[in-house]
Amino acid sequence: MAKELTPRNENYAQWYNDLVIKADLAESSAVRGCMVIKPYGYAIWEKIQSILDGKFKKTGHSNAYFPLFIPKSFFSKEAAHVEGFAKECAVVTHYRLKIDEKTGEIIVDETAKLEEELIVRPTSETIIWNTYRKWIQSYRDLPILINQWANVVRWEMRPRLFLRTTEFLWQEGHTAHATEQEAVEETEKIINLYADFAENYMGVPVIKGRKTEEERFAGAVDTYAIEALMQDGKALQCGTSHFLGQNFAKAFDVKFTSKEGKLEHVWATSWGVSTRLMGALIMAHSDDNGLVLPPQLAPIQVVIIPIYKSGEDMQRVSETAEKIKEELEASGLTVKFDNRDTHKPGWKFSEYEMKGVPVRIAIGPRDLENNTVEIARRDTLEKQVVSRNSVDDVVRGLMEEIQQNIYRKSLDFRRNNTFMVDDWDEFKDIIENRPGFVLAHWDGTRETELKIKEETKATIRCIPFDAEIEKGKCIYTGNPSDKRVLFAIAY
Amino acid sequence: MAKELTPRNENYAQWYNDLVIKADLAESSAVRGCMVIKPYGYAIWEKIQSILDGKFKKTGHSNAYFPLFIPKSFFSKEAAHVEGFAKECAVVTHYRLKIDEKTGEIIVDETAKLEEELIVRPTSETIIWNTYRKWIQSYRDLPILINQWANVVRWEMRPRLFLRTTEFLWQEGHTAHATEQEAVEETEKIINLYADFAENYMGVPVIKGRKTEEERFAGAVDTYAIEALMQDGKALQCGTSHFLGQNFAKAFDVKFTSKEGKLEHVWATSWGVSTRLMGALIMAHSDDNGLVLPPQLAPIQVVIIPIYKSGEDMQRVSETAEKIKEELEASGLTVKFDNRDTHKPGWKFSEYEMKGVPVRIAIGPRDLENNTVEIARRDTLEKQVVSRNSVDDVVRGLMEEIQQNIYRKSLDFRRNNTFMVDDWDEFKDIIENRPGFVLAHWDGTRETELKIKEETKATIRCIPFDAEIEKGKCIYTGNPSDKRVLFAIAY
Repeated sequence: MAKELTPRNENYAQWYNDLVIKADLAESSAVRGCMVIKPYGYAIWEKIQSILDGKFKKTGHSNAYFPLFIPKSFFSKEAAHVEGFAKECAVVTHYRLKIDEKTGEIIVDETAKLEEELIVRPTSETIIWNTYRKWIQSYRDLPILINQWANVVRWEMRPRLFLRTTEFLWQEGHTAHATEQEAVEETEKIINLYADFAENYMGVPVIKGRKTEEERFAGAVDTYAIEALMQDGKALQCGTSHFLGQNFAKAFDVKFTSKEGKLEHVWATSWGVSTRLMGALIMAHSDDNGLVLPPQLAPIQVVIIPIYKSGEDMQRVSETAEKIKEELEASGLTVKFDNRDTHKPGWKFSEYEMKGVPVRIAIGPRDLENNTVEIARRDTLEKQVVSRNSVDDVVRGLMEEIQQNIYRKSLDFRRNNTFMVDDWDEFKDIIENRPGFVLAHWDGTRETELKIKEETKATIRCIPFDAEIEKGKCIYTGNPSDKRVLFAIAY
Repeated sequence: MAKELTPRNENYAQWYNDLVIKADLAESSAVRGCMVIKPYGYAIWEKIQSILDGKFKKTGHSNAYFPLFIPKSFFSKEAAHVEGFAKECAVVTHYRLKIDEKTGEIIVDETAKLEEELIVRPTSETIIWNTYRKWIQSYRDLPILINQWANVVRWEMRPRLFLRTTEFLWQEGHTAHATEQEAVEETEKIINLYADFAENYMGVPVIKGRKTEEERFAGAVDTYAIEALMQDGKALQCGTSHFLGQNFAKAFDVKFTSKEGKLEHVWATSWGVSTRLMGALIMAHSDDNGLVLPPQLAPIQVVIIPIYKSGEDMQRVSETAEKIKEELEASGLTVKFDNRDTHKPGWKFSEYEMKGVPVRIAIGPRDLENNTVEIARRDTLEKQVVSRNSVDDVVRGLMEEIQQNIYRKSLDFRRNNTFMVDDWDEFKDIIENRPGFVLAHWDGTRETELKIKEETKATIRCIPFDAEIEKGKCIYTGNPSDKRVLFAIAY
């Protein structure tokens, strides 16, 4: 095989990096921390975008676009927000370059210094709420349900492709409501939408819950998150939905006249998922042979590879292959017939395994004689020879089955790596030696949370919505607790 | 009427600005030169994106994503390019802010100064060709046919919504080829694709042609453009496609081994259209009542407005309206039933006229009795009463008819405002007093071109591809010329 990955059990981080490169998903760029998303990786992101966008629109949201730049002073307006976001960011200070007359080099034109620096948006609450002030006067102007697909920048000291990059792509929803209840409902609606997407499209089971104060979005009253478990036992936060209360409305003076004629501050939410989802998708399912993609998000769902020796063989095989391609496309599938004569079938097999194409069909002269084809599925690597006439049925069945199987496999993995722990030594041992999700009691204090983090690197990923009420003692202090929270080492 | 526009013949620029604001398309933001694209405006942009994206994919292109930032030194590598682009741009010099301990204000952290400044991309040739160097070794790696949907920044001193903004949205295609001929063919293919889009979707007739050296893209060997005539007689460049020769391949050292085993520089093209198209769309068709949209790009194609006095009326009208909505949606149309009780029918009529919805259906109790509805078309403002059963047929017919009519109207306007001119005084008179497209002879020199610009502000928009060969004398110098070129005052 031309392309080999570092095995997962040897070096998981290296395996991930190898895979992103070798499956042609993305690569580092000349700008530190910024990545190039290559066509195959971007095609997956386009599928993610298109499905989510459909869901946002179906739930009444519209897209809009707000500026890339945010005046520096906007960050000072919301006290918690500035702490969280105004630090590691790209600062634009000048708006012109010029040629240095002495050296001939391009230099910054010092006469073109901005009066107020502009920050490349790390998130857009401030500029959007500054805009909403003009849009909202009356309860009739509410709700505002807007989403934006955009690039954002957060300066990243230890970048990793898709998982942590200085520039990343995302969507950010920003909604404005007349009542607290409506805003809370919106926050919940979106976290449920994200969970549905993660589970039914990405095939990644997630735990929905509330963030602790420590882990909350800077400026939020409450942050809901979905958390997934990767194959190395680490947690990956896949999406967040924030109930912002009236914080941004107060910071940007956004008031409305209610039905009762009273002047009130507007209630807000914001929510987002990013190209980080690509990291989750890659890490949740893939194996030492390469990417494993759920059919719902695969840019190529079926690849057909011809096996032939002579040109005559090739022509006969091609005819059948083209017919099968047509049939499958008529069934709504995305099919590639790889008839390149520059690569051998074995090379192609490895290539599409690396790229995670869910189903591979091979056709050779013997298949033509027997009226069969060979069908291989990427998730289990199983092969079967099926009759030519049943190809459409079998492949459509496999699309369903693979989608379900990889979800089930991930769910089994999570079940086998989720631990109910009541003892501090056991907690430390698990986190260190066989990391996974740990459900344990916590006394609810920031102090304890930080101490646990300090001693084990584990953080509270969320307080699961479906946590049962049970009496217990905090894993660290022994103080009383009424439900378990979800601990893990996080990406 | 609540919303009135400045009439076009009173102040065209003000009419345009009023319209963009009152039709809820976009507005200026708190960041000078940057706009907020509002949901209704963005919905039109999404239609533009989706149609173009489909056409790019159908012609073999894939999307990808390259970094927002470009290292300053990259701009020095292509001599012509630096002249054109490295000047008015946003320069990132620092990557951190901090709280000033004395004042409590947020300030730039001087210890976080970048070693090399980063430029917010004004266009991406440099970063992309720096990347292609790693992707291309052999003729087998070619062609590369990549497009990117992105935001770009060019510092703008006299911003105008959609037409000239510091940040704008666009697509930029960047292709790499083994031969000159293939690259030239790609350049042509794309300018034809753009022209097809402008004419058959936007309903805007365009002149295809080649730019003069003076007006060429910085770094291109040849620039093709499509030029449209706006209602005020000014030209708007709607899209460009550049044949870059081997300029960027040489600047970034991108070579490949040809089929014959020789090491050669790669041939390149780049091409783009931007949110400026929104400006063309608005200005080409709209009138003093508001926007006029071609059905192909209208986010709402049909609006249904109920006319009622009592709640009982409303209920009966609603039932019929909902049925008509279903019927039309089944025919693939986008329909809005505006059943808000907070606004009167007259207000709604004006509102959807302002927003350019192609067809309006009004239904009242009398219509129910007569089994009719009233149908109004936005382009001509004509109304007709039609039988309830023919609504679907009539509306589908109108979609075609309106699409064609606004194109025809624009084409007539252009015909009536295109002048063949052979006399310098006449040239000056037309440009000054009844601007439009002027077809005149030119001696082919940069000097003459600049002098004409200096004296009249008219520029050569393009040398039309279909210009007939005819002997003539330069309008300015009297020197010999073999074809007419297209002059106009440009946006």
